[in-house]
Amino acid sequence: MEAPSATVELTQELIRRPSITPLDEGCQELMASRLSAIGFDCQFLCWGENDERVQNLWAVRGPQGPLFAFAGHTDVVPTGPEENWRFPPFEPVLHEGMLYGRGAADMKGSLAAMVTACERFVAQHPDHNGRIAFLITSDEEGPADYGTVKVMEWLAEQGEQITWCLVGEPSSTDVTGDVIKNGRRGSIGGWLTVKGIQGHVAYPHKVKNPIHMAAPALAELAAEQWDEGNDFFPATSFQISNINGGTGATNVVPGTLKVIFNFRFSTELTHQQIIERTEAILDKHQLTYQLDWNLSGEAFLTEPGTLVGATQESIKAATGIDSKLSTAGGTSDGRFIAPSGAQVIELGPINATIHQVDECVNAQELDQLSAIYQGILERLLK
Amino acid sequence: MEAPSATVELTQELIRRPSITPLDEGCQELMASRLSAIGFDCQFLCWGENDERVQNLWAVRGPQGPLFAFAGHTDVVPTGPEENWRFPPFEPVLHEGMLYGRGAADMKGSLAAMVTACERFVAQHPDHNGRIAFLITSDEEGPADYGTVKVMEWLAEQGEQITWCLVGEPSSTDVTGDVIKNGRRGSIGGWLTVKGIQGHVAYPHKVKNPIHMAAPALAELAAEQWDEGNDFFPATSFQISNINGGTGATNVVPGTLKVIFNFRFSTELTHQQIIERTEAILDKHQLTYQLDWNLSGEAFLTEPGTLVGATQESIKAATGIDSKLSTAGGTSDGRFIAPSGAQVIELGPINATIHQVDECVNAQELDQLSAIYQGILERLLK
Repeated sequence: MEAPSATVELTQELIRRPSITPLDEGCQELMASRLSAIGFDCQFLCWGENDERVQNLWAVRGPQGPLFAFAGHTDVVPTGPEENWRFPPFEPVLHEGMLYGRGAADMKGSLAAMVTACERFVAQHPDHNGRIAFLITSDEEGPADYGTVKVMEWLAEQGEQITWCLVGEPSSTDVTGDVIKNGRRGSIGGWLTVKGIQGHVAYPHKVKNPIHMAAPALAELAAEQWDEGNDFFPATSFQISNINGGTGATNVVPGTLKVIFNFRFSTELTHQQIIERTEAILDKHQLTYQLDWNLSGEAFLTEPGTLVGATQESIKAATGIDSKLSTAGGTSDGRFIAPSGAQVIELGPINATIHQVDECVNAQELDQLSAIYQGILERLLK
Repeated sequence: MEAPSATVELTQELIRRPSITPLDEGCQELMASRLSAIGFDCQFLCWGENDERVQNLWAVRGPQGPLFAFAGHTDVVPTGPEENWRFPPFEPVLHEGMLYGRGAADMKGSLAAMVTACERFVAQHPDHNGRIAFLITSDEEGPADYGTVKVMEWLAEQGEQITWCLVGEPSSTDVTGDVIKNGRRGSIGGWLTVKGIQGHVAYPHKVKNPIHMAAPALAELAAEQWDEGNDFFPATSFQISNINGGTGATNVVPGTLKVIFNFRFSTELTHQQIIERTEAILDKHQLTYQLDWNLSGEAFLTEPGTLVGATQESIKAATGIDSKLSTAGGTSDGRFIAPSGAQVIELGPINATIHQVDECVNAQELDQLSAIYQGILERLLK
């Protein structure tokens, strides 16, 4: 049996560290030791207290010029019952070409590929143009309060600006490199309480039924065409996820109705516009309500250009694949980086098994991923 | 201190029997012994098994002719924590003119007044016209499955037809006799499940959101003018009492929405018309749904005529009060009697304390109630 590649070996070392979010368990230390060895300047940035404490790694190499940053996270989601796993989730096993373990695909394989890509690139180009950086957090799978968002604030305070950013999220569908995420929809949630007056169903003149009052407003929100999307995004979508009103008794009209909804929105809208239009509809229906909003992230888009072009060329060169651009799927830490003005893409392995039992990644494709990453550095910083 | 009247004394004897629904605890036996003594023919009719067993009393006096029936129930609602009562709920106490105890107003006072009214009437008119009957159940406050509804079926099987029926429900508002209920709205409940397809809010093309699909249909149901009521009834009212959809997670569109609603309807509509019109609206909105109905009772109305006239005259003669007709409020066992074609009214004491702690009734007004009941017999059967 062949010895595992440097990328697979480093992935295994990272998987052995049970860094269930928001723990890092020495993953960043391991990465920093490898990066320091090839001339990176490493800093650990910590925020939060006690159980919420989060460690982040900022590593940078090169004296000046445009800044290419690899971004990612060392934390993983919980395993669920370990007895449901084919192999213990934190004891990486290579089996029939697949590397099994929690975080193999999301995203310790990507982290290893970034490190080994840099090791080869720096060996060949010790005096490369521009700068290479690593922005690594251990708080992506959890609340994400003390991770990338805080590092970006800190960078802004330093006057530091990322030019190009590659987030190692598992973007691929069938084979590594087939899909590049060049943006993400925005996401904003609303918690609505419609107020009425409770009473007995037999005395309708004494009640104000909040379900009745809300129904036409909710119908209008559900029917609203928020935008038509654009070349890169589907139309903005509104979905009510939860609606609850009633005391359980069948003869009592409740005093309040609670509704939770979510928008996934394109770059045609800002979250402010969504808030304004939603409240205008509720006001039009003369509802008495309280509405609390939670913005998960604005929509962002990296249009085809230097970063996307270099990435597509590198994928083609390393694998022969014509990659596709996509903005589909959930949110990622790219939402915290894009607002700084950086070009941001996401490129990583196949995402079929992430967050599941028996999470795994194709070992050979990890080596290809490392080659793709190296090719991007060659094209941007050689 | 004056000795309590025969009516108050009998009410006390009935209150001492803790006949929490569906128990009778000897109340009917006591009534039957008094009625047998004045020539009533008494029968106990039982349905249901074990815990659900219900005893009913059917007593009738007179050989032939139109049938006047007193109807009522010996069961009472639970007391709640007895320590919250001023006096023990099953130890009747006369205090400052009020008789306290569970069932004092709903409706052991009325039962006693019915019995003493008959005792005096029969003493004066041993050979009265027509017939007098008692239809007494111990299953009115509970499920009401084995009570009046069964007795009415049994009477129909005997070919027996009630001409006039007085239900002793506490109909009065400020003083005994001020309100006669000459009908009740119908009540029907619907349990609706709207079916959609569950999924992640980030993939709106893969879901069918049952909340979105239902909202315009619910808005239309809430806005519908079902009828305009009539001289005796307010317009039919539709009220959603409960609405629940959602998994709790804020990023998941649920697969189903559950809605519970209730109609209180006038004599302008039947329950079949309500079902048809409701389903037509749901169908128009192309919902996939399951809808289960539960009819509590059709609307009924006793228009001013022989029974209402005799009752209003008797109230005026006994108390000087001009009584009002009303069809407001919840349902009563009258709903089971009216469909037979009987004229049905409800007349009893003030309902202010019913189902509450410290339930009580004015002792003097109980004597007036007995006089009113007697006056009705005089006017219809002398």
